[in-house]
Amino acid sequence: MTRASLNDLPLRDDLRGRQPYGAPQLDVNVRLNVNENSYAVPESVALAIVEAVAAQVRTLNRYPDREFTALREKLAKYLNAGLDDEHRLTADNIWAANGSNEVLQQIVQAFGGHDRTALGFVPSYSMHPIISQGISTRWMAVDRDADFQVDREDAVRAVTELQPDVVFLCTPNNPSGTALDLATIEAIYDVAPGIVIVDEAYAEFSRSGTRSALTLLPGRERLIVSRTMSKAFSLAGARVGYLAADPAVTDAIRLVRLPYHLSALTQAAAGAALDHSDELLGNVEALKAQRDRIVQTLPRFGVRPFPSDSNFVLFGGLSDAHTVWQRLLDRGILIRDVGIPGHLRVNAGTEAETSAFLDALGEILGETPQ
Amino acid sequence: MTRASLNDLPLRDDLRGRQPYGAPQLDVNVRLNVNENSYAVPESVALAIVEAVAAQVRTLNRYPDREFTALREKLAKYLNAGLDDEHRLTADNIWAANGSNEVLQQIVQAFGGHDRTALGFVPSYSMHPIISQGISTRWMAVDRDADFQVDREDAVRAVTELQPDVVFLCTPNNPSGTALDLATIEAIYDVAPGIVIVDEAYAEFSRSGTRSALTLLPGRERLIVSRTMSKAFSLAGARVGYLAADPAVTDAIRLVRLPYHLSALTQAAAGAALDHSDELLGNVEALKAQRDRIVQTLPRFGVRPFPSDSNFVLFGGLSDAHTVWQRLLDRGILIRDVGIPGHLRVNAGTEAETSAFLDALGEILGETPQ
Repeated sequence: MTRASLNDLPLRDDLRGRQPYGAPQLDVNVRLNVNENSYAVPESVALAIVEAVAAQVRTLNRYPDREFTALREKLAKYLNAGLDDEHRLTADNIWAANGSNEVLQQIVQAFGGHDRTALGFVPSYSMHPIISQGISTRWMAVDRDADFQVDREDAVRAVTELQPDVVFLCTPNNPSGTALDLATIEAIYDVAPGIVIVDEAYAEFSRSGTRSALTLLPGRERLIVSRTMSKAFSLAGARVGYLAADPAVTDAIRLVRLPYHLSALTQAAAGAALDHSDELLGNVEALKAQRDRIVQTLPRFGVRPFPSDSNFVLFGGLSDAHTVWQRLLDRGILIRDVGIPGHLRVNAGTEAETSAFLDALGEILGETPQ
Repeated sequence: MTRASLNDLPLRDDLRGRQPYGAPQLDVNVRLNVNENSYAVPESVALAIVEAVAAQVRTLNRYPDREFTALREKLAKYLNAGLDDEHRLTADNIWAANGSNEVLQQIVQAFGGHDRTALGFVPSYSMHPIISQGISTRWMAVDRDADFQVDREDAVRAVTELQPDVVFLCTPNNPSGTALDLATIEAIYDVAPGIVIVDEAYAEFSRSGTRSALTLLPGRERLIVSRTMSKAFSLAGARVGYLAADPAVTDAIRLVRLPYHLSALTQAAAGAALDHSDELLGNVEALKAQRDRIVQTLPRFGVRPFPSDSNFVLFGGLSDAHTVWQRLLDRGILIRDVGIPGHLRVNAGTEAETSAFLDALGEILGETPQ
């Protein structure tokens, strides 16, 4: 068949010249580039997931529960385990989709759009602008401070001035790794005219004492906390993201969600995983220990790590970050060049993977003193 | 937690007052309302799907193949089995997503949008306008003729005049069931300035001699044929839709798709199903026979069925369609009130389900002569 080019097609004007999201998917030994959980799903949980899926397979001829009520109940129960009674959630507070990207897209569809704006404090998760622009929502980026933190006064001033319809806050922030204090979220919410999304994809990895924005939900109907099963739950391949918010938010999302968007297999697999959340989250402490080890070790190589509440570490002070990235890859170690000059991001892996990364980086930086 | 109302939220203006898509999901004995395949997945295929899923479960900690290349190859192979050599497709021609709804949404995101329009010939699949409006694409409806057919000259005139950026054609058409001839599709494509989507969700049920729009693809880079595994493949619960088009179309969709949108479980399940497509499609002929039986029987009740190339039948001539719908439901038989006065839609089921429907309808209409 002949092959046309993109220029032959009536593509939306604001997409022309864009590149698709594309972190490299390479088959190397040590993959520490997309903040996956290095630990496979434990055998006992894997069996429970297969059993739950098997129970659904013969009836796949029927559409799945459009409201995925059983899954929403289990997600509420999981979140409630970390919350006081006054912050308790029910299934009505919960929505889920195929990865938190789809959750965020549904939020932007409901509350953003072509005559609206979304604002983020950058550098932050690269999908926030891509998702916003995919729904023709004008993206406004406000720079973080020199330490990639959100300064409360600056943020309040920016939101007051720019009046964004949707604010994205990412805590712990990707790619810098540090959590945002709740007082800053409250202050931003108070001046924001629209929706405030707190993307807590990595919340389970936060250092002790870090409080979740879930505790801010009561009485704040424009606040949405998004979470994912891709990271702490080791389920990136299952694509399950979710949110907690006022039930009115989920009513809004029902107006834009595609019916039956969550398959019966996804609902079954995620439900079984939540029934075994303790086992599945069993490696979170091990990953946090490797994360802390990276933070503690990197200064010896003359590079500067940022404090991390996530399963990854951003580090700066490299004279040529891309060359370091390539030399690591030459040694079979894939980390992430997030496009910040002089910086790279690596996620904590198993002890062996983390050692491989640290040893290789030490060698490379020994060869090329920073 | 307190509960706000939708009016308390900064919902997009054009969503205010809308209702979510909501065909009833009721637990009754005979469900013939959403054109599902009444046959469960055969045991041998169910085992193959579970085995394929099981092989992926331990590595769910990793993101799935963003390009789902193996699945695209299998989808191309499946379509090629019904095509001549000159129309052969490769993986580059194929894209897939979580149900054909998501495929259609991605197409509208790439080629529609807030300053663009989409056109359909109504009545047709109710999600076409919902998906278009969800992406703020202005929806334009052109009425079909009295038999719910698309008149070629009228259609060409409408498209020439209205210059839609996206045209939706549905063949066989939902809810009327009849296929569209290829000459009409060609004529519409020739005058359409933008994308022409041919939604062939029910193509496998077409009467013999019906040709697929897949045969029109070569040399028509603005033509997209969408398909689904929800109907003939008995996999509504697995949520797998796909399209065939010029590879440039898939390049355009990569600009708006959410990365990793198809889970490893979905890729595995769909792949295993395609490896067993003959077994899985084994009930298509039985369903067509029941469909033909409905078409042949209904006139005896004084109602008028439309010719059907799908697994469902629309019938008219009812004085009070909604009451008939309710009386069927009172007997545990759920069919679809598609909102066309005097008409109802029913899908063919197993022989027993179809008999239950026909017997009940005969009784009801006997009580209330039309």
